[in-house]
Amino acid sequence: MKAIVRVMLKNGVLDPQGKAIEHALATLGFQGVEDVRAGKIIELSLAETDPERARASAEEMARRLLANTVIESFTVELAG
Amino acid sequence: MKAIVRVMLKNGVLDPQGKAIEHALATLGFQGVEDVRAGKIIELSLAETDPERARASAEEMARRLLANTVIESFTVELAG
Repeated sequence: MKAIVRVMLKNGVLDPQGKAIEHALATLGFQGVEDVRAGKIIELSLAETDPERARASAEEMARRLLANTVIESFTVELAG
Repeated sequence: MKAIVRVMLKNGVLDPQGKAIEHALATLGFQGVEDVRAGKIIELSLAETDPERARASAEEMARRLLANTVIESFTVELAG
């Protein structure tokens, strides 16, 4: 099954990529953009078919490789 | 309101970042990972409160700046 891991910088951690996007949007004429945060998304296709074990496994992957948990938080979502 | 733009490489476009993650997971001992695709997520806080206009605006931002629609596809999701 598929596990989707979303990795975002924690609140309070400066996000220069988000700020750059925010400025670029303003330069392009988009108004009313109050804040932008940029993150990563990792779609894992797992052989595991049990949802609980797939989730546990994806969380372990996120903790050990995909996210830097000092500055980033992650969520795992299962799909199909 | 918040608009979440997910940008992924289109199917068929080689994803070296995804492949690197796949190999790193295998090296760490994770088994049963069949495929990995990496993408970007951009959370926009918009002043706009009308969901339809917020979505239209976020899609326009994605087309003009956030995604390279030649090789990437995007989805927009509204949240609160």
